[in-house]
Amino acid sequence: MRDELDRRYRDYIACLNRRDWDDLRLFVDADVVHNGTVLGVAGYRAMLERDVAAIPDLQFEIHFLVIEAPHVAARLQFDCTPTGDLFSIPVDGRRIRFTENVFYGFAEGLIRHVWSVIDLAAIRAQV
Amino acid sequence: MRDELDRRYRDYIACLNRRDWDDLRLFVDADVVHNGTVLGVAGYRAMLERDVAAIPDLQFEIHFLVIEAPHVAARLQFDCTPTGDLFSIPVDGRRIRFTENVFYGFAEGLIRHVWSVIDLAAIRAQV
Repeated sequence: MRDELDRRYRDYIACLNRRDWDDLRLFVDADVVHNGTVLGVAGYRAMLERDVAAIPDLQFEIHFLVIEAPHVAARLQFDCTPTGDLFSIPVDGRRIRFTENVFYGFAEGLIRHVWSVIDLAAIRAQV
Repeated sequence: MRDELDRRYRDYIACLNRRDWDDLRLFVDADVVHNGTVLGVAGYRAMLERDVAAIPDLQFEIHFLVIEAPHVAARLQFDCTPTGDLFSIPVDGRRIRFTENVFYGFAEGLIRHVWSVIDLAAIRAQV
């Protein structure tokens, strides 16, 4: 179960990094909830498409994972060049590095709940 | 090992909630590193004392834990009334709710590394 979640999660991240939005449904539950809001796969895809529009060179890099079924906790790292504002912060083409601490609740092999916190303070400190 | 980390972590949170700073050394490594900065126990205690000065009614509440040795990942919840600014946000006595996603790396039963991200966007949205 642990190794299955590990593999599923890494496949999900690879899916994001190749912008394979049609395959999102293979990893994300139809009724996925993100930070308390029911997005569904379509809303989740729209969120990711907005992220990539703001950060054309966005790549999700796993620093490390903590896995205990049904949860995956991920420490993610980003090293990227947002084009304009990012999370209402005027980044304007600067290269920035920041992290995200994010928890996922899996149900039947799919991501059902996401609790994400992005390190905005780190972004502000670089602008 | 899993249950030992669970117990140790919950004892650590109880220690914080009763402001038992003298007992911190029972949970925190002498060379603890917080978000990339070596604080040591004294620096870690000073950080917590600053937090409590800013938020007199601060209580750490565990929403859920994800445990895989040597890591503990914690989803923490706060419901509190900061007195002045909090993380440079003018909260000024409002009751606010926010979360923290935090990873801990344990070594020999003590917290050696902390990777913490606090949901500042949630705080800003309430001010």
